[in-house]
Amino acid sequence: MTGPSGQTVLDGIRTRTDDLGVDGRGTLTVGGRPADELLDTFGSPLSVLVESTLRANLRRFRAAFETQWPEPVTVLYAVKSNNAVAVAAVLAEEGAGADCFGAGELYPALTAGMDPRIVVMNGGNKSADDLARAVATGVGVNVDAEDELDLLEKAWKDAGSGDPVAVKLRLKVLPADWSTFSSDSTGTSGAALQDYLERKKWGFTIPRAAEQITRMLASPAVRLTGFHLHVPRVTQDPTFLAAWSAELGRTVVELHTRTGFWPGVVDVGGGWSRERDPESRSLALNEHPVEEYAAAVCGALRTSLEPAGLPLPQLWVEPGRYVTGNAGVLLGRVGAVRHDAGRRWIATDLSTNLLPRIDINGLVHHVLPASRMTDPATVTASVVGPTCIDSVLGRDRELPELARGDLLAVLDAGMYADSISNQFNALPRPAVVLVGPDQVDIVRRREDPAEVFARDVLPPRLTGAGTAPTSPAEVSDRLSRGMV
Amino acid sequence: MTGPSGQTVLDGIRTRTDDLGVDGRGTLTVGGRPADELLDTFGSPLSVLVESTLRANLRRFRAAFETQWPEPVTVLYAVKSNNAVAVAAVLAEEGAGADCFGAGELYPALTAGMDPRIVVMNGGNKSADDLARAVATGVGVNVDAEDELDLLEKAWKDAGSGDPVAVKLRLKVLPADWSTFSSDSTGTSGAALQDYLERKKWGFTIPRAAEQITRMLASPAVRLTGFHLHVPRVTQDPTFLAAWSAELGRTVVELHTRTGFWPGVVDVGGGWSRERDPESRSLALNEHPVEEYAAAVCGALRTSLEPAGLPLPQLWVEPGRYVTGNAGVLLGRVGAVRHDAGRRWIATDLSTNLLPRIDINGLVHHVLPASRMTDPATVTASVVGPTCIDSVLGRDRELPELARGDLLAVLDAGMYADSISNQFNALPRPAVVLVGPDQVDIVRRREDPAEVFARDVLPPRLTGAGTAPTSPAEVSDRLSRGMV
Repeated sequence: MTGPSGQTVLDGIRTRTDDLGVDGRGTLTVGGRPADELLDTFGSPLSVLVESTLRANLRRFRAAFETQWPEPVTVLYAVKSNNAVAVAAVLAEEGAGADCFGAGELYPALTAGMDPRIVVMNGGNKSADDLARAVATGVGVNVDAEDELDLLEKAWKDAGSGDPVAVKLRLKVLPADWSTFSSDSTGTSGAALQDYLERKKWGFTIPRAAEQITRMLASPAVRLTGFHLHVPRVTQDPTFLAAWSAELGRTVVELHTRTGFWPGVVDVGGGWSRERDPESRSLALNEHPVEEYAAAVCGALRTSLEPAGLPLPQLWVEPGRYVTGNAGVLLGRVGAVRHDAGRRWIATDLSTNLLPRIDINGLVHHVLPASRMTDPATVTASVVGPTCIDSVLGRDRELPELARGDLLAVLDAGMYADSISNQFNALPRPAVVLVGPDQVDIVRRREDPAEVFARDVLPPRLTGAGTAPTSPAEVSDRLSRGMV
Repeated sequence: MTGPSGQTVLDGIRTRTDDLGVDGRGTLTVGGRPADELLDTFGSPLSVLVESTLRANLRRFRAAFETQWPEPVTVLYAVKSNNAVAVAAVLAEEGAGADCFGAGELYPALTAGMDPRIVVMNGGNKSADDLARAVATGVGVNVDAEDELDLLEKAWKDAGSGDPVAVKLRLKVLPADWSTFSSDSTGTSGAALQDYLERKKWGFTIPRAAEQITRMLASPAVRLTGFHLHVPRVTQDPTFLAAWSAELGRTVVELHTRTGFWPGVVDVGGGWSRERDPESRSLALNEHPVEEYAAAVCGALRTSLEPAGLPLPQLWVEPGRYVTGNAGVLLGRVGAVRHDAGRRWIATDLSTNLLPRIDINGLVHHVLPASRMTDPATVTASVVGPTCIDSVLGRDRELPELARGDLLAVLDAGMYADSISNQFNALPRPAVVLVGPDQVDIVRRREDPAEVFARDVLPPRLTGAGTAPTSPAEVSDRLSRGMV
């Protein structure tokens, strides 16, 4: 067979905010840096983030919504998609706030210097400690449990009953008619998709929400600012987002009728499909740009809010994958190449430990021959990680003939990758570097092999068979001395 | 509705090596210790391992195969299933060796004092460094790549050309006829199952294996001791294992015909379904005990090796899940309980971060109401984790009415759980304790929240928006001071 070179593939899938190229040697460049230079400098495998892409994605996203919404638009970065402190710091410089899922995700947002007034603690199972942390740091809270207001009132009192906590109420809103919708990311449609989404653990329906609003309006501990909606990434279809937004608007109007409360803020959440869209389970480009999603959501929401005849609220939006997805590239080296039983496997030091959603959700990523970008494809091979599970990074891909030492790149690895990575088979996790305008910085250092076992403690009573260490420090020391 | 109590459920699913009970207060006991005592002492959530169950599983497994195989049987514990050093130490006391996938997994095995002669480095993408580590530590190697012998010869020479390295050759063997087989763990059967297994990246077919054997027999660097076969867990059906083993025997005989090599050891790998078998995607008990699998495999292998008229090799066997599965229980606390839209969700501090194979492979675990084991079930609810994904630990389960502070237990959490866990949503991982005969020891300490971000480094140029830390130590310090 002959097929397109990596360069030809890349030219066909490059999107507006990418900074990916090919140098004169036929080597992939990421943020202008050749892949081999990055790996030689920082080691393999390596997670590379491109600062200019992060910034460009945030600006484009904000502009898309500001164009469509006449009131102020605030962008809260969804920290869960990539929780590196440096990513939050870049986005803080761009003026973003943060959607933080649980107390732990507050850390990157606040360390990055984000304004607590546009940092929100989200989550359906916040503990009393979590809420005390929210009160102490002055961030907002998306209330999402029946007894959460009780816990929050206690935390507020324990902290001295200062300014009330800014809260939004998380709503459970679903499109009214499912018959025309299908989901590429779950492989479901119609009633099965409806069931999938109805089973989500989030939010309050109208009767429950009305009870919560009434209680909140009477509570000195909280200041109800508006509503929050969680929209997972379901489909590329903008009419689905429009249907959801229309139902959100109708819900807000109905709640106003029941309680008299009209929101100052409506937060329409995240789930915005990217142009290259691994979650679609396809390598094909998504034909719907984010501007189209912004128009669909804002248009439907405005139309459905208008019957109330009240001022439009501010719009908050929570992009995660949209900002980080194409800003991240995983680079690795080819190891063993196997030909047998009529098939070909290319093994690499990259694995689905670093991209778990390939195994969880069937994501399909572009895998490029980073050291041979100008060679035409001549073989069909599966690219596999070194772990004891299949760890298929790319199945039956057309690639040039590759050999041990060649380089590979997995695109769109900035989202839901490092933040959900694991250490299966005792593999330490790679360094994360940020390619800036003038330099490349390590923003998350490579994990030492000893760190996989650094929490292990061997009770003295179990030293019978060997000469066992009795502390994590000794574990690390032994590992550094060669395990003997 | 009314349904069975947790105690009634437990009585119906208890297996021979479990140490699970209910005390006079209606509280679940694990290894004789009440769940509330364990959580109060060690914090929540908590991973609990029962030493007596680990030992009993290993003894039962070894006896099952020793009964069926006339030559010596060696048990190599598959470290990947649970890589806590303490687990390896317990099994070392029981005389087990270890199957280690890659260099990292050597650490628990050798720290536990296992004999390197029955410790093997496995893996299809070993690096030169990995193989140097194997030579240095004196462990065996399962060769599984076309150029691995070259790398191994170099490592052996670099180390001074001492004793040759004991190697086994990993074979690619599949049953000849697929028409009658189906796989509960993958939901495939027949040709689709065949395709699934043929795509596995492992092993050499007969022509390639014969080439490798010829080279190995001529190499001073290695001593070929036999063959290795990787059998993933595909089905509970013992006839499938028998078909596979028969094909293995025929392959060994054919390779003898081609090369003159007859193995001293045949390693039939792992993948042995447990009695309670979450990987079957069902809560029903597996009706096939391990003794039946041992009989099926050993019988088919003996029959198929006999035509050669040569001495039976030693048998090596690699249980992982079989030894660790039911020895582990995850304990956690109920948080928010939500009733809305005709459904009920019980949130807990346990999540699929700690049991990723629920999301990856659809595993189905028993979830018990650990603090109300004698209360009849009165509601149907889904038990969900606190993360931003569905994180469904149990879907539509019959449970008593539970409230914030009640306790939950997820059974069969000893296998492929902690070793593949992640920190999504910046959640630190729980402590692992080992319940011994006289005491309970922490064998993997609880992860500090700061450790999630301990590898983060913020370049000084990104401090514009806030007052950012510049070292991991400062990150940890800030987190401990409350993130402000």
